Amino acid sequence: MKNKPLILVTNDDGILAPGIRALIDVVKGIGEIVVVAPDSPQSGQGHAITIEKPIRLKKVDPFGGIEAYECTGTPVDCVKLAKHIVLKERQIDLCVSGVNHGSNASINIIYSGTMSAAMEASLEGINSIGFSLLDYSFEADFSHIKKYIAQIVNWVLVNKTIKGNLLNVNLPSTPPIKGIKICRQADARWEERFQESIDPRGQKYYWLTGEFINKDTGEDSDVKALEDGYISVVPAGHDLTNYEGMKELKTMAFEEIFDQ
Amino acid sequence: MKNKPLILVTNDDGILAPGIRALIDVVKGIGEIVVVAPDSPQSGQGHAITIEKPIRLKKVDPFGGIEAYECTGTPVDCVKLAKHIVLKERQIDLCVSGVNHGSNASINIIYSGTMSAAMEASLEGINSIGFSLLDYSFEADFSHIKKYIAQIVNWVLVNKTIKGNLLNVNLPSTPPIKGIKICRQADARWEERFQESIDPRGQKYYWLTGEFINKDTGEDSDVKALEDGYISVVPAGHDLTNYEGMKELKTMAFEEIFDQ
Repeated sequence: MKNKPLILVTNDDGILAPGIRALIDVVKGIGEIVVVAPDSPQSGQGHAITIEKPIRLKKVDPFGGIEAYECTGTPVDCVKLAKHIVLKERQIDLCVSGVNHGSNASINIIYSGTMSAAMEASLEGINSIGFSLLDYSFEADFSHIKKYIAQIVNWVLVNKTIKGNLLNVNLPSTPPIKGIKICRQADARWEERFQESIDPRGQKYYWLTGEFINKDTGEDSDVKALEDGYISVVPAGHDLTNYEGMKELKTMAFEEIFDQ
Repeated sequence: MKNKPLILVTNDDGILAPGIRALIDVVKGIGEIVVVAPDSPQSGQGHAITIEKPIRLKKVDPFGGIEAYECTGTPVDCVKLAKHIVLKERQIDLCVSGVNHGSNASINIIYSGTMSAAMEASLEGINSIGFSLLDYSFEADFSHIKKYIAQIVNWVLVNKTIKGNLLNVNLPSTPPIKGIKICRQADARWEERFQESIDPRGQKYYWLTGEFINKDTGEDSDVKALEDGYISVVPAGHDLTNYEGMKELKTMAFEEIFDQ
């Protein structure tokens, strides 16, 4: 490790969210910090990128002298711009994303802008960690988790894992925290409800809401670890191949339909 | 299979794209069709959902009598609205998404609105197929692939795979097509370039572009199958856990940093 590692900070709740401020508080003592984050909340953006319109980038100073930029794009856009424009291909030692206001455990990872930003960095070969607190509120208290974020960041900077260069870290909303567990993504999902209503002009609209349903009873899932009061750490990747499905399909003469 | 399977059609290029019209041409002879698609192009939307604002849904008739709705949301929103509002929890036998104008092979799956719509349906337990043609142009010719789309749709309706309920199907842009191959997702990525320019008001902007880089030399990848003139079919899932990374991390005393 260099004396001063270069750490990129981003999030999906926007550059003015308390969560990113908490994360910067932790990492500013650890390395040289550059912040590139969305100028507005981007929760639920998944791995969205902006290709139909241009993106703006603006230097700002919300963190008292720390180099920071707000971006009109998605969290993934922020990471791409940070790597290729702001940092002009300098070696980034670590990307940290968050701290997200709300869980990104289990299936939330695929909807999460926080984790997609971290994943984009990992695709660039950068060690990357997404942090999320299990409290959706703007007023969430991050004080009890700062110590653990520092420990995890320092560990990754020293140990530089190769196969597991992307970590999805979720933290309990209140102390006491019992420990850290390496987990797999729980097989859970959201059950949607739509709030249906009428706007002031008499037009119908829908607003998405839902309920988190976990039928995964395994002991090694991230949801279980969090329920038990642990910090969950899921090493994540970007291969969505369903290898069991491949095996199944190969036994079913699927490829032969071509000759029919 | 019921006599008339219920087939949900969506896409990410918008309800007026030629690709969805080609897909509807194929499936309208196979089942009862309901179309719910975005009212504007949503390429690169990944698994984005709309939670910060309401969503509108409007009945339209661009397909000559086929039940169709345009939606102000993302492709994933379309599937959620189709399932819970438009079809009011009726049993959907199949969701088809596309035909996308452009490849969704390899890492494109994580940026793709087409595949995220299909994945959302699969999370709802609906057999689901995303179709993509390796031609990004609006004027793309879909005529040579209709026969194969029909074969694949009919096969899935009859065989109802369980473990592999989500298929990522990519098709060569021109004939002849040599066959169908069951593949894994190639380990490739995009190398970004940003077009940097100045708008009429003198403000700088960036426009995302890039180059697809494939260093995966395996014989069983989707990119290889497509290069060889085959239709690639990748059974896909939604578990992003990096199990190799889990093993690695467990050997590295990572969990013990908590006690330090």
